[in-house]
Amino acid sequence: MVHRAAVVGGGHTRFGVLDEGPRALVRSAVDRALGSVDRGIDRRSIGLGYLATLGFGGWQIGNASALLGEEAGMPGLPSVRIENACASGGFALQAAVSSIQAGASEVVLVVGLEKMTDVSNARRRFWLGVSGDTEWERQAGLTFAGVYGLIADRYLKIHAVPREALATVAVKNHANGALNPNAHFQKRVTLDEALAAPRVADPLGLYDCCPVSDGAVALLLTSVELAPRFTDAPVYVDGIGASSDFLAVQERFDLTRFDATRRAAEAAFRSADTERGKISFVEAHDCFTIAELLALEDLGFAGRGEAGALTLSGATGRDGRLPVNPDGGLKAKGHPIGATGVSQAYEVFLQLRGSAGARQVPGARTALTHNVGGAGATSAVTIFSAG
Amino acid sequence: MVHRAAVVGGGHTRFGVLDEGPRALVRSAVDRALGSVDRGIDRRSIGLGYLATLGFGGWQIGNASALLGEEAGMPGLPSVRIENACASGGFALQAAVSSIQAGASEVVLVVGLEKMTDVSNARRRFWLGVSGDTEWERQAGLTFAGVYGLIADRYLKIHAVPREALATVAVKNHANGALNPNAHFQKRVTLDEALAAPRVADPLGLYDCCPVSDGAVALLLTSVELAPRFTDAPVYVDGIGASSDFLAVQERFDLTRFDATRRAAEAAFRSADTERGKISFVEAHDCFTIAELLALEDLGFAGRGEAGALTLSGATGRDGRLPVNPDGGLKAKGHPIGATGVSQAYEVFLQLRGSAGARQVPGARTALTHNVGGAGATSAVTIFSAG
Repeated sequence: MVHRAAVVGGGHTRFGVLDEGPRALVRSAVDRALGSVDRGIDRRSIGLGYLATLGFGGWQIGNASALLGEEAGMPGLPSVRIENACASGGFALQAAVSSIQAGASEVVLVVGLEKMTDVSNARRRFWLGVSGDTEWERQAGLTFAGVYGLIADRYLKIHAVPREALATVAVKNHANGALNPNAHFQKRVTLDEALAAPRVADPLGLYDCCPVSDGAVALLLTSVELAPRFTDAPVYVDGIGASSDFLAVQERFDLTRFDATRRAAEAAFRSADTERGKISFVEAHDCFTIAELLALEDLGFAGRGEAGALTLSGATGRDGRLPVNPDGGLKAKGHPIGATGVSQAYEVFLQLRGSAGARQVPGARTALTHNVGGAGATSAVTIFSAG
Repeated sequence: MVHRAAVVGGGHTRFGVLDEGPRALVRSAVDRALGSVDRGIDRRSIGLGYLATLGFGGWQIGNASALLGEEAGMPGLPSVRIENACASGGFALQAAVSSIQAGASEVVLVVGLEKMTDVSNARRRFWLGVSGDTEWERQAGLTFAGVYGLIADRYLKIHAVPREALATVAVKNHANGALNPNAHFQKRVTLDEALAAPRVADPLGLYDCCPVSDGAVALLLTSVELAPRFTDAPVYVDGIGASSDFLAVQERFDLTRFDATRRAAEAAFRSADTERGKISFVEAHDCFTIAELLALEDLGFAGRGEAGALTLSGATGRDGRLPVNPDGGLKAKGHPIGATGVSQAYEVFLQLRGSAGARQVPGARTALTHNVGGAGATSAVTIFSAG
């Protein structure tokens, strides 16, 4: 493992249908992150902030990063908005790691935010559905659920995988979310309930789709050398990898493979100088249940077409060989777009410090986060280890 | 001077009312940048791309960075969209410098783009006027010209500066733009014409306001060590500084001072370990003529209220003591929002290599770019030197 930066603090709001607006959510996440630092932190040591958001509630579309300093109580903070759709958070985290490596600042703040409910339809149009391809998908009426429905249909057919594999992802992630006090959905579902739910985009049913959520998450990163100033239990960022793909799925060679994730994973493992067998658990981008199956294969944890059997075997459960989404994933924890990638890293921060409470993965020492923008057009993979 | 990264290639489309759409503009700028590298460049050495854009033509709002790899002929390129309103380009450039310093890639591509004309009003709403404060300015009907009109009114009154100082900025920048084949406006204006133009937001008239333009610019950055592989005449990035301010101007202590620029300039000069007297010329963010006067003061080249007299003295002309905006500035060259900060650095690339043609600043060895988001809410200042 090559330690590239260290996470020393993290704050997470509840995900769900919240009363708070975007400014209040940012403030709340930052305050919690500052309060989480074991030995305390002087706000003035924070020299740079990244804001990951697709639409800031449809309210402050441009220049929203200026609000980061205002709401964090750090007027003047240099701040940058990063937007790579649903992967905004993962890319902001990687930008923060680069900034730490470049010595740009002692401490870098990363905030992911989305306010998606209590927003008028006119404003929702700003940011819902704008992250898929416009020419060939959106204008033809193909929604995200539609794209993933096509992918799922193809995947189940060519690999002869039963719908129960998809439903098992939902059952597992809801069971994990039920133990996460920040999750949007904190209730279990049964396999029968998942299978019987109304169809959204065949073969995907209601429980195959993540919800539309509000929420914000903040992380504080520093250098490996400075980390002991803040805590005895830093979480190291060891590897980062990212890639892109053709925005329209029709341009790709294969509908059931996200090459951006494959390339990002290769780069991340190379960058961390480690291997898949050493990963204790995975935070995968399960915007739809099918996406978790693809992720297992594209990240290299299962062969082509084998993720269904792996999931049905229970291996990805919290007590399985390779726990996936112990926090409930996008499926149950919720998916406030810009916040998701930061939230995945927050879960890693808790788990690798042994602070994940009822959902703790025993003995977790390393973890991988996987954050996807659109239907696989951008992908960021990050590898962490316990200090 | 502390060399932090090197610019080894640059490409610039015409700025103006163009037939091309956003994809074609990106492709054109990238192709020109690749073609500009003295010893050639293998696209595969480019490991990371930043796309600075506010709205990608109102067409691909989310995940637009995925298109960078497609249009640059580099499928799979890790790519990140950075949006800090009109300062998106300056912040993307600084992110690229950090990535080079962090060793993330041998060569990093930065592209700034905006497609602002030939866009329906429904789409323009996505990105025009969304970068000022929403609650206190936009919803009250205060446009950008309105905000800068208020600032100009106050500035002229408290410092007893005549409107001729503003008009002189326009005359100078139009004269420079007339020598720039990529400029939106390539015609001179007289002082009388500028003063007599219809008022837009008193005291600002038509010639005090930059136009709405299409355009794209691409730059290739590498490390100082690798630069000789590509050219004998790299341009070094020596200092970067950035800051933010309250988004709503009413929250600030002083209407006629942009503290974000003051802090960004201090950080940039500290980072470059140089001083103002060594700067050969400045690329200032003159979205309105008043903004160039504020910039001269906030960057430390003139005392409070003294930029008017400095401008009237001719010192900021192309043959003056401190040339400002030799490329015509936003005023005459045009202001395709996300492209502007990258275009400023492109002008520096040309000038410091002695390749600026008819508008060459004789003996230019160092330069400073100043890129502002909104009405001063975000600001990025960068210092360069000739290799």
